[in-house]
Amino acid sequence: MIFSSKIERCELSPMRKYAPFADAAKARGMHIYPLNIGQPDIATPSVFFEAVRNFSAPVLEYAPSGGVAEYLDAVCAYYNRLGHTDLTDANILASNGGSEALWMTMSTILDDGDEILVPEPYYPNYSTFITLAGGKVRPIPTTPEEGYHYADREKIEPLINEHTRAIMFTNPGNPTGNVLTRAEMKMLAGLAHDHGLFLISDEVYREFSYDGEQMASMLEFPEAAENVIVIDSVSKRFSACGARIGAVISRNKEFLSEAMKVCQGRLCCPTLDQVGAAALYNEGPEYFAAVKEEYRRRRDTAYEMLMQIPGVVCRKPEGAFYLMAKLPVDSTDKFQMWLLEEFSASGDTVMITPGEGFYTTPGKGIDEARLAYVIEHDDLVRAMRVLAEGIEAYNNR
Amino acid sequence: MIFSSKIERCELSPMRKYAPFADAAKARGMHIYPLNIGQPDIATPSVFFEAVRNFSAPVLEYAPSGGVAEYLDAVCAYYNRLGHTDLTDANILASNGGSEALWMTMSTILDDGDEILVPEPYYPNYSTFITLAGGKVRPIPTTPEEGYHYADREKIEPLINEHTRAIMFTNPGNPTGNVLTRAEMKMLAGLAHDHGLFLISDEVYREFSYDGEQMASMLEFPEAAENVIVIDSVSKRFSACGARIGAVISRNKEFLSEAMKVCQGRLCCPTLDQVGAAALYNEGPEYFAAVKEEYRRRRDTAYEMLMQIPGVVCRKPEGAFYLMAKLPVDSTDKFQMWLLEEFSASGDTVMITPGEGFYTTPGKGIDEARLAYVIEHDDLVRAMRVLAEGIEAYNNR
Repeated sequence: MIFSSKIERCELSPMRKYAPFADAAKARGMHIYPLNIGQPDIATPSVFFEAVRNFSAPVLEYAPSGGVAEYLDAVCAYYNRLGHTDLTDANILASNGGSEALWMTMSTILDDGDEILVPEPYYPNYSTFITLAGGKVRPIPTTPEEGYHYADREKIEPLINEHTRAIMFTNPGNPTGNVLTRAEMKMLAGLAHDHGLFLISDEVYREFSYDGEQMASMLEFPEAAENVIVIDSVSKRFSACGARIGAVISRNKEFLSEAMKVCQGRLCCPTLDQVGAAALYNEGPEYFAAVKEEYRRRRDTAYEMLMQIPGVVCRKPEGAFYLMAKLPVDSTDKFQMWLLEEFSASGDTVMITPGEGFYTTPGKGIDEARLAYVIEHDDLVRAMRVLAEGIEAYNNR
Repeated sequence: MIFSSKIERCELSPMRKYAPFADAAKARGMHIYPLNIGQPDIATPSVFFEAVRNFSAPVLEYAPSGGVAEYLDAVCAYYNRLGHTDLTDANILASNGGSEALWMTMSTILDDGDEILVPEPYYPNYSTFITLAGGKVRPIPTTPEEGYHYADREKIEPLINEHTRAIMFTNPGNPTGNVLTRAEMKMLAGLAHDHGLFLISDEVYREFSYDGEQMASMLEFPEAAENVIVIDSVSKRFSACGARIGAVISRNKEFLSEAMKVCQGRLCCPTLDQVGAAALYNEGPEYFAAVKEEYRRRRDTAYEMLMQIPGVVCRKPEGAFYLMAKLPVDSTDKFQMWLLEEFSASGDTVMITPGEGFYTTPGKGIDEARLAYVIEHDDLVRAMRVLAEGIEAYNNR
């Protein structure tokens, strides 16, 4: 049987290889601190479950392809409160999480051989959706020493060619935790406008920005009104990853009309989850303030403890709930296997995400890793101690 | 801005054009009987809502990419009860409805220029997913006079060429209501096996088969074990379209492994809806018997009343909840517009689905229409009377 050459270029999750070794470690009685997962531990606001429980229609019907009115209204009101007062429900398409928002966008803009510029390291599933649509990632290179900084016109402009269709990034960043400044965002808006490129801004971590820069959106720049496509989701914002409710937001009417073909093709997003997601948007500033404060505290702890490990290279990340760092080991992949198979800190060990999976460029990321701080503060402190002990023991083995 | 040539080859739903005219008719006080929709009116079993209400985890987490164990177990047990006792959870991938099951399958098997054989008329979204993956529909032609019969080896085999990757059909059929005989299914299995083609069998209407032929699955034919991919969903089976929970079922391990890349790319299907869907599979034979009896009664009524209209061509459909027929009008599109704009049967009118949208071949389906019998029996009787009156008045206008 013949398979698509596109699916053959995609890869299964690189994290799968560690699962049997993690299971074996647990079976030996080891406790594993998971610094490798992007699943928030903060409780989903109860309004979600209440709205779902109160749903009383006898038939669970298809939702409209573009989204349930109640959900679109809620997302629209949220963006209006952010200052984008011209946006209406017609600028928003509901999606099955940020994931489908990406898939829809790629399907709408890419042909075989097209390229998308993506700062490296990047969220690995970008590559899956780009590849499935026939395109390929052209990485914007960065270094851990420069804090994975990518937003330089001089760095990006030479990479643009006749195949380039878009620039895509996560802001605040996954895996780096980088947050763009207003000046950098304005530069990107101008660049996209000047070259007629889509600017795909994945803003699912928008609220989680810890150092002064107010939370922002690429929707703020009128010069790029036709270029900007925002990817959004309730997954991280409201700790509701399992709801699978996201959105595509744009002012480009032609894009929205083309993307609507995909929406109609897959009929709709889940009705109940959209009703629940609409309720989530009633959460006020105090909800966000509390969650942000919790993540900020963890970010500070994780970063400070990481920097006490000799040889680590990391610039303090300003947002999301990740740190990306160069670790003083030969290979974070080998190190992770060793942590699971041979190491024990009084019965504890730790999982990280080795860096290679975040890169397209061969050989990059080998001594880097992503750490996610979505476990409770006390556990995080212990996890960082175990990591420090592990690095020392690994290099002295 | 440049869009994908693939999305440009897709079309917005042909039904959209009637919506403003339907709204205008309603605003004039007209009552519209909807014979155009595929949304079942039967109540969703309450076990779905109970399971969702009883969900008590504080964080709505990501589900596993392949599906929640509880849901996979339930689907597997259902297939085991159908007699496919070798199937395990590993043969099943959860999907966002049958729609995503189709999208996943197309993404996994198609490259640009590949072809899929599909009997015409067909469910229009097949074309969307095939086109988005770079492929194209090669129609297997049928006629209303022959009851849209397509399962002839002599008819299909000459259409196979070096670009053909699969044969895809809905059984029981949408829009035709056709149900394949065991002999026809066996022929298709042999054909797919002989030519090394995938056999994509969309069996979302499996339970709705009214005339003797027991409900069946392409999974029954061991000679096509590596070829068969079954598309499934709770949408029609349990009147739970808004749950968006479906599945891909196959014995082809390589296919499942490649499709898992898509599953991991989009992370997962909604957690709560999978929990609800798992509960639906506890419904016993009495549930299916009652629903089937209700649909059978409506099928009989709709068919008998349709055949009383002079000039209609329709062979009695054996399954699903649709009839496809040739109507004695010049154009079902023009007729539909006239029904909305000019006709009134004591304040009532009716909507049908004009046939052209179910065909790829230009000029086909112009005087055909699909009728869905998912409204209550009394309403159906009135709707069929309004339709008959409408046809007479249209031709005498």
